[in-house]
Amino acid sequence: MSTTGRRVGRPRAQQRPDSGLTPREELLEAAAELFTTHGYAATTTRAVAERAGMRQATMYHYVAGKEELLAGLLESTVAPSLVLARRLLSDGTASAEARLWQLCRSDVELLCGGPHNLGALYLLPEVRTEAFSGFRQVRADLKAAYGQLLAATEACGGLDADELALRTDLVFGLIEGVILIHRSDPGRPPESFAAATADAALRIAGAATRVAGWPRAG
Amino acid sequence: MSTTGRRVGRPRAQQRPDSGLTPREELLEAAAELFTTHGYAATTTRAVAERAGMRQATMYHYVAGKEELLAGLLESTVAPSLVLARRLLSDGTASAEARLWQLCRSDVELLCGGPHNLGALYLLPEVRTEAFSGFRQVRADLKAAYGQLLAATEACGGLDADELALRTDLVFGLIEGVILIHRSDPGRPPESFAAATADAALRIAGAATRVAGWPRAG
Repeated sequence: MSTTGRRVGRPRAQQRPDSGLTPREELLEAAAELFTTHGYAATTTRAVAERAGMRQATMYHYVAGKEELLAGLLESTVAPSLVLARRLLSDGTASAEARLWQLCRSDVELLCGGPHNLGALYLLPEVRTEAFSGFRQVRADLKAAYGQLLAATEACGGLDADELALRTDLVFGLIEGVILIHRSDPGRPPESFAAATADAALRIAGAATRVAGWPRAG
Repeated sequence: MSTTGRRVGRPRAQQRPDSGLTPREELLEAAAELFTTHGYAATTTRAVAERAGMRQATMYHYVAGKEELLAGLLESTVAPSLVLARRLLSDGTASAEARLWQLCRSDVELLCGGPHNLGALYLLPEVRTEAFSGFRQVRADLKAAYGQLLAATEACGGLDADELALRTDLVFGLIEGVILIHRSDPGRPPESFAAATADAALRIAGAATRVAGWPRAG
């Protein structure tokens, strides 16, 4: 038995793993795990701090509290897709159908990628409060970008505003619906499913799903 | 002032509204409201009892606790659709496309109908525990019924098992995805949206969306 086996005065909470993450990222990672497995309401800031290997008092140097962590996690599920959507909207070289397909595939991979199903947090009652207006805005902007890409497709070009809004809801609902599918079957690799979902989105748009020369996976 | 105006010894919690509901139904209704607005973890059995106008001790005559209420609410979002799906599966007079369309429309109306968005409860971490295996089984049976109807359509008849499972996931995901759409835009009347979602489901299946003589709404 080694004398170093028992370290009096060095609580477990200070043993930070050498993860290469910043303290804020470690807190977000810990919150992602706890919020999706134990639930947001049932998770205390103390539990998040402990899981991230730091004291609760230290945690408040990096984040204001649980709401900020949830807001950060939610925004991470939409912000990268909005960046891609804006790039695709300003890309005049590919067809609207090809760009919509690419956005759908990438968005599904984002929603189903990562070790935690963060989309499961979308339906928390807390998300309707003011603290999450930033997330709701980014999500609304992303949905609007889907609508713009849809409007630029041949099949949807002639639709009136109501019809286009409905079609946008359906495509956006299909994409976010993968959250529920992923929840039931978390073992499925997202890549193959992402391409099939993008195909399905084009079917809903009314477009043919095989366009020569577009970036198909598989 | 009437002498009956003040009823000493008759606490407010016993003043049950004349709702026509059984005590169990009143508890489910109260739980639906509180779980979807305050969250499941944040709602106490005492709060449910109070909202239903009864004492906590009385509540336990009708339900074993919070889990039973959540299980009952979850099952109410899938059981009626499973009953319809089984009826449609044994109906040899209509085409598979028409029956699939009818199931989709009805399922969306169920998911978006009612004053509370009960589908929002699907993503609770608690739902993965043993107490909710009944709900998960009914939901799996419903999804299997979607798969059987899909397999009977002309467009999907020739698909292999993996392709059919993928197509089933996409259609089922589209239908359940309305939970997320409904959450963002609860004011929309479900009827028009339900028909459009059923059309979109047939598009994903690969079928034409306008079949002469099928039960279209509007």
